[in-house]
Amino acid sequence: MMSTLSWLRRGISEIFPDQPDSSSADENLVQRLAQSDRPLRIKLGIDPTGADIHLGHSIPMRKLRSFQDAGHTAVLIIGDFTARIGDPTGKSEVRRQLTEDEVRANAQTYLNQVRPILDFDTPGRLEIRYNSEWLSSLDLSKILQLLATTTVGQMLAKEGFSERYDKGDPIYLHEFLYPLMQGYDSVAVEADVELGGTDQKFNIAIGRDLQRHFSLRPQFGLLVPILLGTDGVQKMSKSLGNYVALSEDALTMYSKLEKTPDTLLKSYFELLTDVPLDQLPENPREAQKLLALTIVTQYRGEAAAKHAQQDAIALVQGNTTQADTVPEFSLASVQFPAKLFFLVSASGLCKSSSDARRQLQGGAVKLDGEKVDDVDLTFETPESLIGKVLQLGKNKFVRFIA
Amino acid sequence: MMSTLSWLRRGISEIFPDQPDSSSADENLVQRLAQSDRPLRIKLGIDPTGADIHLGHSIPMRKLRSFQDAGHTAVLIIGDFTARIGDPTGKSEVRRQLTEDEVRANAQTYLNQVRPILDFDTPGRLEIRYNSEWLSSLDLSKILQLLATTTVGQMLAKEGFSERYDKGDPIYLHEFLYPLMQGYDSVAVEADVELGGTDQKFNIAIGRDLQRHFSLRPQFGLLVPILLGTDGVQKMSKSLGNYVALSEDALTMYSKLEKTPDTLLKSYFELLTDVPLDQLPENPREAQKLLALTIVTQYRGEAAAKHAQQDAIALVQGNTTQADTVPEFSLASVQFPAKLFFLVSASGLCKSSSDARRQLQGGAVKLDGEKVDDVDLTFETPESLIGKVLQLGKNKFVRFIA
Repeated sequence: MMSTLSWLRRGISEIFPDQPDSSSADENLVQRLAQSDRPLRIKLGIDPTGADIHLGHSIPMRKLRSFQDAGHTAVLIIGDFTARIGDPTGKSEVRRQLTEDEVRANAQTYLNQVRPILDFDTPGRLEIRYNSEWLSSLDLSKILQLLATTTVGQMLAKEGFSERYDKGDPIYLHEFLYPLMQGYDSVAVEADVELGGTDQKFNIAIGRDLQRHFSLRPQFGLLVPILLGTDGVQKMSKSLGNYVALSEDALTMYSKLEKTPDTLLKSYFELLTDVPLDQLPENPREAQKLLALTIVTQYRGEAAAKHAQQDAIALVQGNTTQADTVPEFSLASVQFPAKLFFLVSASGLCKSSSDARRQLQGGAVKLDGEKVDDVDLTFETPESLIGKVLQLGKNKFVRFIA
Repeated sequence: MMSTLSWLRRGISEIFPDQPDSSSADENLVQRLAQSDRPLRIKLGIDPTGADIHLGHSIPMRKLRSFQDAGHTAVLIIGDFTARIGDPTGKSEVRRQLTEDEVRANAQTYLNQVRPILDFDTPGRLEIRYNSEWLSSLDLSKILQLLATTTVGQMLAKEGFSERYDKGDPIYLHEFLYPLMQGYDSVAVEADVELGGTDQKFNIAIGRDLQRHFSLRPQFGLLVPILLGTDGVQKMSKSLGNYVALSEDALTMYSKLEKTPDTLLKSYFELLTDVPLDQLPENPREAQKLLALTIVTQYRGEAAAKHAQQDAIALVQGNTTQADTVPEFSLASVQFPAKLFFLVSASGLCKSSSDARRQLQGGAVKLDGEKVDDVDLTFETPESLIGKVLQLGKNKFVRFIA
């Protein structure tokens, strides 16, 4: 039993209910795990909106893998129903309505990115479900039943709603239905456990209520922390630029992780790797390298990780020719003469030309290890650039090719 | 135009919007009535819960008839969908779930009772619709759209909800859906006008919003007052005993209405008859008689009404043999010897034997015009009772038959 506990409890914020309560019939999660004569069903919901998956998203996914390895069934729920509806008020730019094809394509991209984490191959270990399967056939009488399980007061007490209500910001009625839809997913797949970030506690608890309402055994909630970004300050997020995406090339991933702030090292090891926490190197530089190597190995394999590590060392020393894992950028489509700031932007190192000019002026741009800060630097032909490595800051590189 | 206005405005509380507003494109109801090149569709929703219809319910129904007479289409919506769901929380005794057969039977009873009011016969003047026709096929994506038209704040501002929320009484989320369902009825039948009591303003306004959302011309609301009961104090209600049911026999109806309090006479004439209000008798007793005669004539025809009037006069004078419209109660199923208080209860004049004893002791019971207050009075055989009139209070009578 204690070995079960160690993988289960590593890096989690909360399991609830953690004490036997009346509704779960004298049982806690450890008991359910121990006593079940069938694989448990472990639910994780994902949003097929097409966003890049980053290490923050990998945390519940890795926990899901641990359950798979212990013989249980990962039930990955793709929230295609809501993605296809978009924002019914028509006011949100973010939640635009997606077509069925877009949703399927996004889901496929998502699955490709998490393929290194989950066990896709062992029979019975993975179930991928689209929630339109049950949500699109819900009728009004069933929906009234769902709504009748919850009071306005309970909804308004939820984090997010309460602040908005108190400020007088409009909350549209359909927003109250989303937690119930997520909860109904748990009913539909008969989840034993639902994984989620700490911000999901309310929704997972709604799932428990609905399962009880439909005479099912209520699921357990297993909450994992929200990951801090590589800046060590804010939560990891693409828009804040403090993220490591699972789709990034090995060198970029390695270079970012090799600079993980000391304050984050322990939690990154705990949440993102299986390295025993009593075996971490005492030297912080060694720990950074081990973290970077371990994580890149997980997603790109050991050979690619070691190669990326060598290239990172070479790049730091200015040996750009040795660093052959640097992502390539073809100059074939670039019109010459071309200004350097344009190349910094066109190659994807910066989001815009104006940003590229600022970075150049700020001294963040190197060409084959040499700082370049001449904003007007212009190349008449591509020849002199081919083979060289353009670098922005500490961990963004491209190698020019023909 | 003015003649249109006089029937339209008689006895109503409010027409809204009464001024042209941006949404109704420079139009008010009188203009829509005048300018439409097709019959307008006038919606009234009814609840097939099996309750007796009383004069309070007849007010919007009579207004509906006025629209029919002006050439428009009455759209009577039978709320079978909600009746068949009952109370999804399972907590309400009142809103128990009805079967399809019960709903159809209740609706038929309802229609039989309002048959004297509405024009059932002229082609195109009446449309009877069951709202399960469209509500049962609403799916989640449509329901999310409905919910997204309204905010939590708007719902909580509604009379009924606001008091409960402020007191901390639970409001279940599905309750927010009912006004939207009623509103969607207006979308489904493309109502031009919705009739209702003054307590329906919010729901009718929701109907306007939803019609606009679905690119239909928003309906007008026409609100009628809530009728005071024959006690002149509280609203007419079966449970308060201050009602006149449309299904009552002519004599009972006449007897109740003949005692209408003076303070109610004008509003009863205005709301329940077509008698011109400048032609009411000055003598209140004459007015009471005219009111009773006019209303009974509406529901039972002129001959029955006059007969009931004569019988009522005869009964007051103790001439019970003349009063041949007194409802009959057969003693065939009664076991003799029988106590009088039992007969008062068994004949339906009182709800229970204990109530019958109290009424006897209080002196409210007469037999052929003679007060009887002996609680132990017992009849050995039915013979001496046959033909006699048992009376409770001023307007409840039965005649014993074999």
